[in-house]
Amino acid sequence: MSNNALPLSAVELGRIDAWWRAANYLSVGQIYLLDNPLLKAPLCLEHIKPRLLGHWGTTPGLNFIYAHMNRVIRRDDLDMIYLAGPGHGGPALVASTWLEGSYSEFYPNVSRDEEGMRRLFRQFSFPGGIPSHVAPETPGSIHEGGELGYALVHAYGAVFDNPELIACCVVGDGEAETGPLAAAWHSNKFLNPVTDGAVLPILHLNGYKIANPAVLARISHEELEQLFRGYGYTPYFVAGDDPAQMHQDMAAAVDAVVAEIRTIQRTARAGGSDPLRPRWPMIILRSPKGWTGPRSVDGKQTEGSWRSHQVPLSDMASKPEHVRLLQDWMESYRPGELFDAAGAPVAEIAALAPVGERRMGANPHANGGLRLRELRLPDYRDYAVAVARPGQDDAEATRVLGSFLRDVIVHNPDNFRVFGPDETASNRLGALFEVTDRAWMAERLEGDDHLAPDGRVMEVLSEHLCQGWLEGYLLTGRHGFFSCYEAFIHIIDSMFNQHAKWLKVTSREIPWRRPIASLNYLLTSHVWRQDHNGFSHQDPGFIDHVVNKKADIIRVYLPPDANTLLAVADHCLRSRNDINVIVAGKQPAPQWLSMDAAVKHCSTGIGIWEWASNDWQNGGGEAGVDQASEPDIVMACCGDVPTLETLAAVALLRELAPDLRVRVINVVDLMTLQPREEHPHGLTDKDFDALFTRDRPILFAYHGYPWLIHRLAYRRSNHANLHVRGYKEEGTTTTPFDMVVLNDLDRFHLVSDVMDRVPKMRARAPHIKQAMRDRLVEHKEYIERHGEDMPAIRDWKWPW
Amino acid sequence: MSNNALPLSAVELGRIDAWWRAANYLSVGQIYLLDNPLLKAPLCLEHIKPRLLGHWGTTPGLNFIYAHMNRVIRRDDLDMIYLAGPGHGGPALVASTWLEGSYSEFYPNVSRDEEGMRRLFRQFSFPGGIPSHVAPETPGSIHEGGELGYALVHAYGAVFDNPELIACCVVGDGEAETGPLAAAWHSNKFLNPVTDGAVLPILHLNGYKIANPAVLARISHEELEQLFRGYGYTPYFVAGDDPAQMHQDMAAAVDAVVAEIRTIQRTARAGGSDPLRPRWPMIILRSPKGWTGPRSVDGKQTEGSWRSHQVPLSDMASKPEHVRLLQDWMESYRPGELFDAAGAPVAEIAALAPVGERRMGANPHANGGLRLRELRLPDYRDYAVAVARPGQDDAEATRVLGSFLRDVIVHNPDNFRVFGPDETASNRLGALFEVTDRAWMAERLEGDDHLAPDGRVMEVLSEHLCQGWLEGYLLTGRHGFFSCYEAFIHIIDSMFNQHAKWLKVTSREIPWRRPIASLNYLLTSHVWRQDHNGFSHQDPGFIDHVVNKKADIIRVYLPPDANTLLAVADHCLRSRNDINVIVAGKQPAPQWLSMDAAVKHCSTGIGIWEWASNDWQNGGGEAGVDQASEPDIVMACCGDVPTLETLAAVALLRELAPDLRVRVINVVDLMTLQPREEHPHGLTDKDFDALFTRDRPILFAYHGYPWLIHRLAYRRSNHANLHVRGYKEEGTTTTPFDMVVLNDLDRFHLVSDVMDRVPKMRARAPHIKQAMRDRLVEHKEYIERHGEDMPAIRDWKWPW
Repeated sequence: MSNNALPLSAVELGRIDAWWRAANYLSVGQIYLLDNPLLKAPLCLEHIKPRLLGHWGTTPGLNFIYAHMNRVIRRDDLDMIYLAGPGHGGPALVASTWLEGSYSEFYPNVSRDEEGMRRLFRQFSFPGGIPSHVAPETPGSIHEGGELGYALVHAYGAVFDNPELIACCVVGDGEAETGPLAAAWHSNKFLNPVTDGAVLPILHLNGYKIANPAVLARISHEELEQLFRGYGYTPYFVAGDDPAQMHQDMAAAVDAVVAEIRTIQRTARAGGSDPLRPRWPMIILRSPKGWTGPRSVDGKQTEGSWRSHQVPLSDMASKPEHVRLLQDWMESYRPGELFDAAGAPVAEIAALAPVGERRMGANPHANGGLRLRELRLPDYRDYAVAVARPGQDDAEATRVLGSFLRDVIVHNPDNFRVFGPDETASNRLGALFEVTDRAWMAERLEGDDHLAPDGRVMEVLSEHLCQGWLEGYLLTGRHGFFSCYEAFIHIIDSMFNQHAKWLKVTSREIPWRRPIASLNYLLTSHVWRQDHNGFSHQDPGFIDHVVNKKADIIRVYLPPDANTLLAVADHCLRSRNDINVIVAGKQPAPQWLSMDAAVKHCSTGIGIWEWASNDWQNGGGEAGVDQASEPDIVMACCGDVPTLETLAAVALLRELAPDLRVRVINVVDLMTLQPREEHPHGLTDKDFDALFTRDRPILFAYHGYPWLIHRLAYRRSNHANLHVRGYKEEGTTTTPFDMVVLNDLDRFHLVSDVMDRVPKMRARAPHIKQAMRDRLVEHKEYIERHGEDMPAIRDWKWPW
Repeated sequence: MSNNALPLSAVELGRIDAWWRAANYLSVGQIYLLDNPLLKAPLCLEHIKPRLLGHWGTTPGLNFIYAHMNRVIRRDDLDMIYLAGPGHGGPALVASTWLEGSYSEFYPNVSRDEEGMRRLFRQFSFPGGIPSHVAPETPGSIHEGGELGYALVHAYGAVFDNPELIACCVVGDGEAETGPLAAAWHSNKFLNPVTDGAVLPILHLNGYKIANPAVLARISHEELEQLFRGYGYTPYFVAGDDPAQMHQDMAAAVDAVVAEIRTIQRTARAGGSDPLRPRWPMIILRSPKGWTGPRSVDGKQTEGSWRSHQVPLSDMASKPEHVRLLQDWMESYRPGELFDAAGAPVAEIAALAPVGERRMGANPHANGGLRLRELRLPDYRDYAVAVARPGQDDAEATRVLGSFLRDVIVHNPDNFRVFGPDETASNRLGALFEVTDRAWMAERLEGDDHLAPDGRVMEVLSEHLCQGWLEGYLLTGRHGFFSCYEAFIHIIDSMFNQHAKWLKVTSREIPWRRPIASLNYLLTSHVWRQDHNGFSHQDPGFIDHVVNKKADIIRVYLPPDANTLLAVADHCLRSRNDINVIVAGKQPAPQWLSMDAAVKHCSTGIGIWEWASNDWQNGGGEAGVDQASEPDIVMACCGDVPTLETLAAVALLRELAPDLRVRVINVVDLMTLQPREEHPHGLTDKDFDALFTRDRPILFAYHGYPWLIHRLAYRRSNHANLHVRGYKEEGTTTTPFDMVVLNDLDRFHLVSDVMDRVPKMRARAPHIKQAMRDRLVEHKEYIERHGEDMPAIRDWKWPW
């Protein structure tokens, strides 16, 4: 058989194998060595780290794939990034990027020489060093390798609207068991071969997780192939453990899949704007866990076993033979052939690496801020609803927002998408469909509603996929917006955590990571307006979850009406490196602020609504001029429904107790409540006291769990007088007004709360409270009879 | 062709079709009617609900399946429950259970007559009535149909250790897009045909979600079949829209799958204890969305379209022709043939229903408390570690717990399982494997570690599957224990929400639902002890998430050592209808309490540790006898690591400021901090003040986010003097001690905090604080050089 029958020439094979051995050597070094990086001296205990922390098992496979991708990137000038799903394969990516030179460009101290190698080894899993998993610190990464399950969905997010990009995505057989990963395979039904790039999934079956085999490694070949054909892929299998043979097999598979990707793209792009869904190729690589590591340790199989998951050799101090085993292991890679005397990789290795930005560690897609283009935003004020008098007219806030977002789509046709779990229309953002469609590459039928391969709205019934696609899209330098039912956004709590931690680390500690667009959530169909959805759909706790994360990247907005929602959304879309949570209702609701007033209100994020307050009007009463600015009660509100109920309570109070001095404060930007030292938006104590007074009772109507307000404000001087109403886990399928009644957040309860808190009302309180109770009884009777709220509640008469 | 060739005789076909029509009629009635249930009068507006809330689309399919299952349950005396994955198909299950009679047994007011039917209709999605989705209120349900994705995993949980049970699980094509559902198909690799029952999955492709088609409905038949063969099932396809033909096709498929299940079970059970993994059957049912509903409304296709997802006909008041359409629609089911003049189902329908507990609405498996057997628990005190003096010896708390759990397994071989995402050994519960294995039905190889078909430890790298299996197991009356890395338990935040809401509703509002075993979490590998895992593995916020739910079902325990962990675990395993969260470390750590002391401490959940305190010893100092019991500082701690650091700080203070009166309080039961009115475990204010004083400074070292302590205690009289240290999102890959230093929770910071807070230390504070800073610098230098903590920190000298 001539050499031509093998995909790799002897020279190519030599290069790839040398790279692989070098990367494996550097990976083992990272896990074990403090010093003596080139093994110039015989290895002894003081060269070895006292705490051995790292994961060898997945690492040689990740190195193997990296080497093979380098060959085709160079040959075909491919634009490729690498996502390492197997969580703890950190040493592999660090080793490979050091070999190609990108690592030392980001971290000049870790130079490509003996001293740099020493630092490379030492820093790994070492205090003050780098984590053992792929992390924001790792060049070329857009994917933290801690929690598992998101590699594939990140990869798809990265290639949307990046037609030339290929995301090589290694999926571990452990993470393949997770739900988000299992769902993510179907992302190929949303990928347009004309305008999007390609994902090359490599399912890496090394057989074992921490202590267990992996499910996909223990089903038959037939089932495995059926599964991935069923997911819509053509799997190419590469399996074995002999390096030379595996290099040839892998090279053949890689050549085939790259050619197939190019053919798919060429065909689709020649064929116009309505392509058929292709069957994308993928690779299933079956190689031993801990490949090339110690065959056995202490008489137990290690290579090819779960025992090589972390550190195959430990107890160095008590087992001197382990030190020798380690030396043998490292020398099995023949470092003398791989590094020159100064510690730099030899020319043969350098010859495999791509050049400049084609190196996967230096690809700008993986440092998305480099590629970020400003959104071209229409003037949000043009979408304002007219508000002649507060409360006079109703509007659906999210529907108004939809028109604005529609034009954001129009002005940014290739770097802005809207994501949601099949709720875009339900959340009343339907205006989007005036200009675009839902992305859809699966079969389409007559009567389908706005489906197209090039749709800009990403809908799938998986919050995980929505979140993951969006993260991948943002991390590669684009913009997006995620709308979701409030209760079910908890599905992605943990993904949010990981993204928030990524942003904290990158924005604070990694200057070469350029700022990316913020992650914007719109939570709607919220706890107070469920209609047919009952108790299971009621959970405002995502805000609490978010606020636990590092303050500098967290923003929470609760605009009370459509114009404030517009102002907030515009601000969020312009921001960088933040996570913005916007909570707003979709149902018809009274509008309070004109656009000018909304802009002013949102610019401070909190303020007195003077038109609803009367503490400045009748301050000249019994208390005299000195206290003209001190109200009897501060009624604060945050969220659209609490604002409505607070204002209705104020209206009642005007009628029932016209001499009561009420100050109404509305909070749009929740984080203003926290002390300035704890959040950049936090009010100073002086400003807080000026709003909330130092000693007057405060009745705070809040959208979510009431204790969050206490947690934000407990250091404020007037905290002892703060009484908060909010959602206290009472609810069922009932009318909108009954939902607030069940949680004591309604206008009638609020009036009673005021009576309990204002000394000067003591005499009149029993009478007024009885009247409120009567109104509540009347309400209960009405809805039990009619199944809907009383007209008097729905058509409330406002005094202004 | 003779009749024998068709699976259904004319009589059977008639019965099934009549049942189906009746259930459909009752479903439409629930969505639309307030009155006139039998259409005795011509339908008019006042018979129709003012708010039309419900989901018709999935309902006829659910009714169709229910009818067909009834036939085989009766014929073969099957023990079957029904899980309705499609969220909002509530009307179907309510209709079918009313038809079979079980509904009226649970809700006698909703009798099987005209008045009962009127109530049945009226209550649906009506204030004070029932939710529109399958809910705890629904007889026969163990699965809330709100959030999607968990039907299949619940079904598997239900049949573990229930060898005769078949869980008929309808999976909607919408929910099939979710991650948890996509992963759950692989549950068949964990199901033992000898000792477990069977799941019969029915993938219901009706094509559409809310506004979109469903992915699985829009891939080719070939891909669909490959996907499910790849998942390890044999799919049987039933597709069409002609009722008579569909009845025959469905009956044939059901006959085939039931026979196949029986064959699989018979073969496996005859074959001994080491069965091969069978290829289980499933059904893929393709039927029109909104089947039998209006073909078109206002000129737009409705049956077979996303437009029938909710209410196909609305705007009744403004469109009188819709009222007529509704009447036509309901009459198309020929109610006169289905119900007698009194409103009861006719004999033909009753003849299809199984009898007694075989009715799916009355099956006791679906009201698991009925079947709950007490756990047989060994005496946890037998597993105690000896504690001669506090701090003298180290133990690994979870390893000690492992021995106890091992014997729980031994004593309860068929109704207790332990669940975890491949972390049982990592979490040091390895003693379990002395008596059992990991459940595993996929291929096994030489060298595998404790895998067996009948293993009692359920490990899969999916927190969703662990949680879902456990929920299904508990809801059908068994017991379980879930151990998980603390940071990643957020993956199931949303599943927790749904289970907590289920428990709240069932325990408070549904007396016929009997109490079930509590859901017990052990969170370990926690934020303070990560070793190689970095910032992405650090999140103690699950506690915050949990505490937001209704107080009466939530318990949170942070045992400081092994003996307290044993006492807490025993208590949790005995409890009912709660969710217990236990947070405990796995690393070697000092032990504080003897078993007797631990029992006493855990019985109150909070207490003064007198042996560590000295406020009672030298109270006779300068302040005189009156203040003998008033300390200069209260040092509270909650969590194993904060307890360690607090006690180390106390040790330092004894040396540096022997006259300082310190009171040490340890909190095991976090909810004791909340007011008694808010949590059943909450301390009264009097008891709280007796512990924490009314005016002395409190320094509280807490395991998690510090503000949670403020949120629990903000109403307490001494709250203004409370200063809390905890995790503030600072962390990386570093040493254990450095982790606490990064968050100011270490002993040296705590001593400095004391100095800032005790007036009598004012003079000495600068000197002591400088000494603490020096120690911190020394620590930093040491770990940067050595990569591990100083021996002096690791081997701390305790004064007691």
